[in-house]
Amino acid sequence: MTARLMIINGGSSSGKTGIVRCLQALLPEPWLGFSVDDFVAALPAVMDGGIEFGPDGEVSVGPAFRALDAAWIAGVVAMCRAGGRVIVDDVFLGGASSQQRWRDAAGDVETVFVGVHCDPAVAAGRELARGDRARGMAEQQAYVVHEGVTYDVEIDSAHTESVECARAIVDYLKS
Amino acid sequence: MTARLMIINGGSSSGKTGIVRCLQALLPEPWLGFSVDDFVAALPAVMDGGIEFGPDGEVSVGPAFRALDAAWIAGVVAMCRAGGRVIVDDVFLGGASSQQRWRDAAGDVETVFVGVHCDPAVAAGRELARGDRARGMAEQQAYVVHEGVTYDVEIDSAHTESVECARAIVDYLKS
Amino acid sequence: MTARLMIINGGSSSGKTGIVRCLQALLPEPWLGFSVDDFVAALPAVMDGGIEFGPDGEVSVGPAFRALDAAWIAGVVAMCRAGGRVIVDDVFLGGASSQQRWRDAAGDVETVFVGVHCDPAVAAGRELARGDRARGMAEQQAYVVHEGVTYDVEIDSAHTESVECARAIVDYLKS
Amino acid sequence: MTARLMIINGGSSSGKTGIVRCLQALLPEPWLGFSVDDFVAALPAVMDGGIEFGPDGEVSVGPAFRALDAAWIAGVVAMCRAGGRVIVDDVFLGGASSQQRWRDAAGDVETVFVGVHCDPAVAAGRELARGDRARGMAEQQAYVVHEGVTYDVEIDSAHTESVECARAIVDYLKS
Repeated sequence: MTARLMIINGGSSSGKTGIVRCLQALLPEPWLGFSVDDFVAALPAVMDGGIEFGPDGEVSVGPAFRALDAAWIAGVVAMCRAGGRVIVDDVFLGGASSQQRWRDAAGDVETVFVGVHCDPAVAAGRELARGDRARGMAEQQAYVVHEGVTYDVEIDSAHTESVECARAIVDYLKS
Repeated sequence: MTARLMIINGGSSSGKTGIVRCLQALLPEPWLGFSVDDFVAALPAVMDGGIEFGPDGEVSVGPAFRALDAAWIAGVVAMCRAGGRVIVDDVFLGGASSQQRWRDAAGDVETVFVGVHCDPAVAAGRELARGDRARGMAEQQAYVVHEGVTYDVEIDSAHTESVECARAIVDYLKS
Repeated sequence: MTARLMIINGGSSSGKTGIVRCLQALLPEPWLGFSVDDFVAALPAVMDGGIEFGPDGEVSVGPAFRALDAAWIAGVVAMCRAGGRVIVDDVFLGGASSQQRWRDAAGDVETVFVGVHCDPAVAAGRELARGDRARGMAEQQAYVVHEGVTYDVEIDSAHTESVECARAIVDYLKS
Repeated sequence: MTARLMIINGGSSSGKTGIVRCLQALLPEPWLGFSVDDFVAALPAVMDGGIEFGPDGEVSVGPAFRALDAAWIAGVVAMCRAGGRVIVDDVFLGGASSQQRWRDAAGDVETVFVGVHCDPAVAAGRELARGDRARGMAEQQAYVVHEGVTYDVEIDSAHTESVECARAIVDYLKS
């Protein structure tokens, strides 16, 4: 297993974070686990050109967000070049173009792309179970994040427990 | 629907909290949702005779815990007598005797007991997905919390999404 | 010390929760510590007649909120009647009338009212340090929550560390 | 202001995170804000050679921790090289040698080192106010993290509010 960077892409409430935690528990080497939510939490609370959430789950981002996001991606790749192994969960709001940004940044760092598919109705139910005020992101993102994206491994988190999804990814890495 | 108190009993990582959040979203009246975790968080951080967690998921409680737990239970029931509707998720470490404490406190407050069954292997996988350092509670508690307990509704959270579990409970309440 | 119920009133970001945690560590008996935030977290995420937060820190509540709040207060008092000791931090948005609701519910349960005063500029700075998106509550609430309220102990959290505030309250209880 | 990397060093409970949040609010450009706690949260929950916390606040780290920490540091610096501005709060358990690791990684990236001094008794009181079970880190780390470290700006968080500490740093950056 020579991969050093793993990108787990899926819509909101598709179960990505749980899969990352299981991967960290199952993989023989220690991997760092980050989330796009960690990046958003690192942004200033109030920022011109940042990220905005609409009433029905729409997400829009401005130029300041994009510039810092590029810096974040470069930083994650640099952690891999410096000897680390990193799993990142992300939401490819731009579909294929989001993936291309990771590919361009990764260069020759061996990267595995994992697609987490989740029936939007199931994801919407899990969104409800989180108890957040905001709703709608699960359904809005379920399909669009996968448009034009190509994967090394694809899993269906609507019908498979997180730990089983993680096992399938570990099996792929061993093969 | 005249019930005012709903007790959701199940082991650690069986998905109780998500079911409570879905119930709050689906039920036509506003229900307060509390968890045994809220009670534990309200305890002093350090306390003689409190709650201790062993290395393999064992939980033991002392006399100070028991006294405050009785006060907590009395308080939750009083919220119902004062016109509130309350859902509590709990872990009946004492099985039937834990249920009896709720029954004694509830008196004539109409109470619904819900049993959340979850295959211990599935619960252990979800425990892994939470990424906590402590492990073992899910397997330790999966069966013991149901010993001798009788329910108005029983659900299987290993094979049913939280929102579907909640729908089954809502259907029972309507019937 | 015979008091069983302690109400800590102060505006947002005045440091109430830290004082409660210190009180729990310093007091010889175990006290449960709850916050109005715990009550708000127990509400359904979406609720007609609930609680709304305006863009400049305004808070407005509707009839469903008020009814459940009365049930919550009755429940907290019942915990004391059942042998528990409880500290609650609250925000008296209604000033004296908020206090009267607690007095009416408490009846003969010995209750201590603590006023936490904090210079609004200091509270606004601490609000900034929390990094939340929403701002303005600290300044909006700093004075209004104390209007017409009478206290057993009053502390100034702008110029006194939480643990020293807690020590002053403990000294009062011993006297 | 040409600095792109700011390292805020201080012991546990000295108020670093609040200062970072205030800096993000006060600085005219958007800065990412990370904490050593974010790095620790990204580690596998269970890891040989990771980080261990003793009963009196001791912290010890093993070789796997060190290797991933070096990757993390390299990644943060790379975010700055890629056009980002980053504030990191850290705990220099190794004193001067911890600082040297950042210097070596930063190379020609303009870096500002900020020392947050806090009287250990005050930090211990704030640790109590956090309500965590673990205690002792505040006192253990208050002095040792500054041994042999040289700073561009030094602040005293025991007697100065977070927002005022942040203002002093902003003034330095402007000068």
